[in-house]
This record gives sequence, C-alpha cells and structure tokens, in this order.
Amino acid sequence: MSARPWRRSPEDFAADIEQAIGWMVRHMGDASERSVWSRAQPGEVGSKIPKTPPSEPEPLKDVLRDMQKIIEPGLVRWDAPGWMAWFPSNAHPDAMLGDLLASVAAQQGMLWTSSPACTELETRMLEWLRTAMGLPVCFAEGGLGGGVIQDTASSAVLACMIAARDRATQSRATREGGSACGGLVAYASEQSHSSVLKATGICGIGRDNLRLVPTDDEFRMDADSLSEMMKRDMAAGRQPCFCVATVGTTGCGAIDPVAAIAEVCRSHGAWLHVDAAWAGTAALSSRHRNTIVAGASEADSWTFNPHKWMGASFDCSCLWLADSRPLIDAMSIEPEYLRNAATDGGDVIDYRDWHIQLGRRFRAMKLWVLLRRTGVSALANMVDFHVSLAKTIEQHIGAHPKLELAAPRSLSLLCIRHVDGDAATQQLLDAVNADDRFAVTHCTLDGRLVMRVAIGALSTELADVETFSEYLLAAM
Amino acid sequence: MSARPWRRSPEDFAADIEQAIGWMVRHMGDASERSVWSRAQPGEVGSKIPKTPPSEPEPLKDVLRDMQKIIEPGLVRWDAPGWMAWFPSNAHPDAMLGDLLASVAAQQGMLWTSSPACTELETRMLEWLRTAMGLPVCFAEGGLGGGVIQDTASSAVLACMIAARDRATQSRATREGGSACGGLVAYASEQSHSSVLKATGICGIGRDNLRLVPTDDEFRMDADSLSEMMKRDMAAGRQPCFCVATVGTTGCGAIDPVAAIAEVCRSHGAWLHVDAAWAGTAALSSRHRNTIVAGASEADSWTFNPHKWMGASFDCSCLWLADSRPLIDAMSIEPEYLRNAATDGGDVIDYRDWHIQLGRRFRAMKLWVLLRRTGVSALANMVDFHVSLAKTIEQHIGAHPKLELAAPRSLSLLCIRHVDGDAATQQLLDAVNADDRFAVTHCTLDGRLVMRVAIGALSTELADVETFSEYLLAAM
Repeated sequence: MSARPWRRSPEDFAADIEQAIGWMVRHMGDASERSVWSRAQPGEVGSKIPKTPPSEPEPLKDVLRDMQKIIEPGLVRWDAPGWMAWFPSNAHPDAMLGDLLASVAAQQGMLWTSSPACTELETRMLEWLRTAMGLPVCFAEGGLGGGVIQDTASSAVLACMIAARDRATQSRATREGGSACGGLVAYASEQSHSSVLKATGICGIGRDNLRLVPTDDEFRMDADSLSEMMKRDMAAGRQPCFCVATVGTTGCGAIDPVAAIAEVCRSHGAWLHVDAAWAGTAALSSRHRNTIVAGASEADSWTFNPHKWMGASFDCSCLWLADSRPLIDAMSIEPEYLRNAATDGGDVIDYRDWHIQLGRRFRAMKLWVLLRRTGVSALANMVDFHVSLAKTIEQHIGAHPKLELAAPRSLSLLCIRHVDGDAATQQLLDAVNADDRFAVTHCTLDGRLVMRVAIGALSTELADVETFSEYLLAAM
Repeated sequence: MSARPWRRSPEDFAADIEQAIGWMVRHMGDASERSVWSRAQPGEVGSKIPKTPPSEPEPLKDVLRDMQKIIEPGLVRWDAPGWMAWFPSNAHPDAMLGDLLASVAAQQGMLWTSSPACTELETRMLEWLRTAMGLPVCFAEGGLGGGVIQDTASSAVLACMIAARDRATQSRATREGGSACGGLVAYASEQSHSSVLKATGICGIGRDNLRLVPTDDEFRMDADSLSEMMKRDMAAGRQPCFCVATVGTTGCGAIDPVAAIAEVCRSHGAWLHVDAAWAGTAALSSRHRNTIVAGASEADSWTFNPHKWMGASFDCSCLWLADSRPLIDAMSIEPEYLRNAATDGGDVIDYRDWHIQLGRRFRAMKLWVLLRRTGVSALANMVDFHVSLAKTIEQHIGAHPKLELAAPRSLSLLCIRHVDGDAATQQLLDAVNADDRFAVTHCTLDGRLVMRVAIGALSTELADVETFSEYLLAAM
C-alpha cells in the first residue's frame, strides 16, 4: 500500500489498537472506582476541545491522553456495578469484539447483493434468538414473516405502526397521506414507552389519536378497557389500527396480558405489537420464558433490545414479524440504481425494505460472537442472578417499616418509595445519587414519586446490592 | 471480578482482540486478492450456520475459523481498490478504532445527563466539520440551530420533513395527524434519492404529494419549473412544505442550483433541505468547497454522510439545522422517567429530541479519532486524488469512439454508456462485473442505461483505474 497520507495500513491499525488497549483495559477495570454519574457541569467537556479540527495528523497518545483528561470526566458509567438507573445498556466484551470485526468487514447490508453475509447471518441470528427465547414458530425464518435487526425499539415500533397504518388503509396512507390517515387510532397502556406517542406523531396518525388504556392495580393494561375503547372508536366511525402491549414497562416492569389484548385486537382488525425492549432478554432463562413470551403467537410483531440487558452493545434491537409483507409494502422503493438480479429473482431478503433507513450496518456479527463466545446458558444464568440480586434488595425493603414497593418487583426491577410521601422519597433519591457509587432514576406511579432500582449491569455483584441496601437504609 | 460465566474480564477482552487482530490484518490486506462482488448463491452462507445457538461457550478460534470459511465468501469487498459500485462506504482504520473506544466507553447519549461527553463531543465535532467544510455560520454551534449525528441520510431527510410538516401546520400534523397533513406538498428533482419518496410515505404527506421536478440537460433541478409547480399547488389550495435540493445526485452526481432553489422555497414558505450525502465530503478540499456549499446559507437543513467517502465507518450522517426548534418541537416527548435537572435547567442539548430514535450511540468518538489521527489536510488530499483518478478514466473514455459520458463527470463519479445503445452498455456492465477485480452498478439517464463508475475507496490507486480502463476498452 502506498504512502498516501490519508491511508493507514492494516499493520498501523493493529499497532494503534495495541497502543489503545491499555486505555481500554484500565477504563473497563475502573468502573467501580469512578463516580457513576458524571460530575461535569454543562459545557465543561466542550470547553476543553478546540473549536476547529487539526489540519495535520496528531499522535494517538495525544488522543488517548485526552480520552482520560477530557472525555472520561464526562462519561456516565453505565458499566458500573452500582448502575441501577433507567435500564442497563450493557456492552459485553464479546459483542464489542464482534462489532469491531463488523467494522473491519466494512459491509453495507441494504440489499442481499450488497452483502449476502450481512443479510443471511442476520436472518439466522434472529432465528437463534427466536429458538433460545422460545418465541413462536410464526416468527420463524423461512415463513411468511421473520426477523430483522433495527437500531432501537423506537424505530421498530414506528416501522410496525406504519405497516399497520398501511394494512388498514390498503396502502392509501403511504400513497395519499393526509386524510387517508384520518380516523386511524392507536392504543397503548398509560405505562407504555414514550416512543409509541412519538411514533404516532411521526407517521400521520397523530398524537391525539393514541388512546392511553387504563391499567390495573399492578399497572398492566386492562384488556376490557381496551375493548371498550375500540368499540367506542368503531361506533364513532374511527378505525382501530395499532396496539402496543408492553412486556416490562419502563416505569415498573409491568407485563401486559398479551393474550387477552390479542383477542381484542383480532376482533377489531388492529395490529398487535409487543414491546419487550428490556424484559425480552429474560426469556433466555427457562424460569421466566413463559411469562415473557405468553401470547406472542397471537402478535403481529414482537421486539426486544439485545443492547440492553443482553449486552449486545448499543445499538441493536430485534424485531420479529408474523407477516413481513405489510412492512415491505410500506417501505419498499425500487429505484433503478438499486435493481439487481438477486432482488428481481425474489429468492433473497433485502432488509432495506424492513425499516426506515436504506443503509445498514453488519449488526448481526456482534450477536454471533456474543452468542457463541458466551453461550446461551451463561446469559440465562446472568438473568437469574440479576433477578436474585433484586430479590435481595426486596427483602431489605420489606423488612423496613418506612419503605415500600410501589409495584410488585418485576424480574430485576424494583420501584421503591418512602411511606411518608414524595418529599421523603425525593430525599432518598438525592442521597443515593449524591453518592459516587450509585445511580438510580425515578418515575411516578399512581401520581406518586418512585425510586426505580434496575439491576442488570454486567459487573453488579451481591456485595454491591448489599452495600446499596445498607446505604439506602442508613439514609432513612 | 468474580468468575460469573457470563462475564469476560478486561484482560480476557484484550487477549481476544490480540487473537483476532491476525484475522483483521489479513482481511484488510487482501482486499485486492478476492472477488469484489461475493460469488455466494442465495442461501449459501446461511446453510453453513447451525439453526440454533450454542448453549455453552465456544473458543474464539472457532469463531475466527468460521469468519474465514463461512462469512468471508459472503462478503462484498466495499474496501477493494476496484470498488466503483454505488458510492464508497469507507471504514477508515482511525474511525474503526474510534468506534471501538466508543463501545468500551459504553455510553447511551439520549440525554445530556445520560452522557455529557457523548453530547458535547458531538456538538463540537459537528462544529469541526462545519468549519473544515466551509459551511455557513447559520449552522454554527451555539446559534439557533446546530449539528447532530443521524444514522443515515434517510433518517435525516425524514426528520427534517417532519419538522417542516409541523412548521407548516403549527404542529397540528403531529397532534392531529390525518387531515392536518392534507394538502402539504414536497418537492425534489427527478434525480433525487429514493429516501425522499420513502419519507413522504412514512410521515403522512403521502408519496402522491411528492412532485418530481424536471432537470436540465445536466440533470440539475430546474428552479423555474419548481417555481411553477409551487405556484400551481398554491393556486389549487395546496401548501408547498418541503423541498430537497441534491448536491451530488445518486445517479450522476448532479449538483442542483441550491441558491436559486432557496429563493423559490423562501417565497413560498417551504423548508429547504440539502442532501449532500455523498458529495459533501468534497467540501473538505478547497478546490471543491465553493461548489458544494453554494447556497447553503439559505437552506434550513444540510446533510452529508461521513460514512461514505470520508471513511467514518457505517453508520454516521451529519445534519445541520439553521433553527432546531421545529425539529425539537416535533420530536420532543418528556415522560417523567426522563426528566432531570440539566434538561429542566435548559442549558444543555438533549439529542433524543433531534431524531426519530430515543437512544443513541457515541458516534462522535469515531469522528474525533479520525479527524485528529488523520487530519483534515490528508482527507482533502484524498478527495483531490480520487477526483484525479476519475479524470484519468474520463480521458480514456474521451479517446474511444464507441464510449461516451452520459453526464458530465461530477467529482469522482462517471456515467459511461456505449454509443450503440443499452444492449451494448449492458454487455459492458456484465463484463466488468464478471471480473473479480471490479464492481460497478448502473442507472438510467434520459431513459438510457448507464454504467456508474464511482471512485472513492480508500485503497484505490492510479494503477487500479488504469487497469480498469484497459479492461473496459478491451471488452468493447
């Protein structure tokens, strides 16, 4: 390879990686020694970076020095043993290695022809996960539907909503837009993720036409209320089009009754999408599988994010469809410059028609390396272990007269509040987050403030949750 | 770290990388020794992968063996010196290293609070590129607008179309959907990218309401025709809402007259989005800067993909907005569980409100490492070199009586056809793609078949384009 100044040889790349691995190993190793939340002030990180880029090359050691000096203080340690905020977003070393191999392979998998390996490994990895999680055969490779990797569950729910919108309007929504979307209604529980509301705003259904279905005393969608709402909409000349059932809500991890919801959807012709973004990983464990996949065989689409609990390294969201044709019909565009013999032959999947984007990264590679290098059994053990850690905290809470659970523990997620009310709960939240070792977030349930404790970082140990419990009780 | 079977220590990770680096170096080094197109048959890659995942861990050497045996035959060598298909999708070693560091940092940058470093480095990297490319001050950091990283230009144009739709309807489109989107019209040239049509179908404007504006004899949008179309729509009670000007069309690299288009858009209140997905990188070179950024100061939004020519490794698309408020208004959702002091204080950017997704990867890191390690000057040299290579091919074509350019060369892109017609051009296409060393794709211009030759892979040398030219002429 000639000495063009914009090139770096494979050997240079190898040398750079070797030089950088020290930073990587140290960084990965010190997750428990740093503040979990960044203590940087707004603007502090940016103020240390020049306003213009260098014209000439800089040595890697300067970049690594600035990683430490400038970037690290602005990092939030999602990888810390005390990470209990939002949900885990784990970057397992095997997945990171897989993603590096994907970078080196340098594929762009928009079409089968643009990368047969990217396409076919993806199809097979979705089949691996389907079988490992016990998802129904309606989502199997080679059937009417199948699986695809999306970047996030937000994109997945949007893509499915559009497919449903088009199914309900015989594609008039895509062709005509405007009033063709009029009268369509979507449904999700009061506890559903914000991405559902965002998607209704994006796709022309309109946020006003998302019905938030009431939940029962454990924050699960009430299927009878859903049925009544759909009937009322039908009577008013509107068309129930799309419904999201959540398996593991963002707030408290509630699991909607998918089978009952599916029955209501079916009788009104609405598309049922299951959002198991966080909790889906628990289906890897035989102890939790039935809870997670219950009713899935009646759903039109089902999604979970391996980039959360499972460790696939952000971003990676898996979506299965019972019938992929409505999605392909809504997304397919065939400009001349993308035509090719394989597509025309009809024997291959062109995944560009399965999502919003055209181009696509070789994300299946990180699933492949993770699932082979770590094995399904170990990942199932991880789920069981994290659930056992949450049970440990649950026992401490149960033993304290001033603390209570605001909802039943769901897998490894706890919602805790002070019996004296929101001000006392806020004090607890502030105390926990003021300590460098822990990060927690909040939500409201029944209008009352709640501390969410979401166990699931790869590094969390029994000692960490014991320390957390002690600290929490001492802060009372 | 204890011996939980789902964990891998930092040291194990380092050892795995060291073991895998051999495959990486070899793979990067043999781009010129393999067939550029994969010769795999449909189903061939998948047939070699088991139907179910392993329960127990497998050694890395088995994975690397299968990389070679199963995956490699299904890879398309986007990194080959003979890659001239579609557009380049370069994975520069510095960007790959940066992306690995991003994986290790394990951030999820949905909010400033969820990663101050991810947020502020991104803002600054967009400012770096803005200054290096000579983009106008209306897109500067700290102004009414600013920059954000999207995954692809498809997502960028969709996000901007939604912002425009909402600006035109005072947010009624997001709130009410349906008929609130009625009467909105979008415009792009006949040569515009398929993502524009796809976006109109997604967002409720409707594909029927995208007007394809005629182009001149060099395939550039005709601003007078645009003006007439907008007037006609206004007269019919419709509302011109959004227009895409393309700087470097997918077919032949035509550069629409952005300034003239901007004037038409302004007089009708339409949002002007500039799609420079491929050609944008050329603005790094002072020779091409003015051509690329002409009229940008009059645009509402401007996008290019560093993952194409610039080498940022898929995926990474940069989007600048003159005013970010319409986009934020359309995308913002504030559930209680994402509320935090920094957001409430209003001093920070929460990038989740700047795109479709909620979660986001630390993509700025790969731009940072690439721009520092390689330097802007070398990247500008790369652009100039690739353009010079295209000129070399152009000279060979010009000297042959049976070959002609179907459009003027645009930067490093050539559109070549046989003077005897489509059958002869198809024969040439087939001959080139049958040779393991080359990959080209096609399009149609003026209804006639054209061979696209898109120079821009990092590895392409003068000798490669000489060999290609000789081969092409010999195949006549």
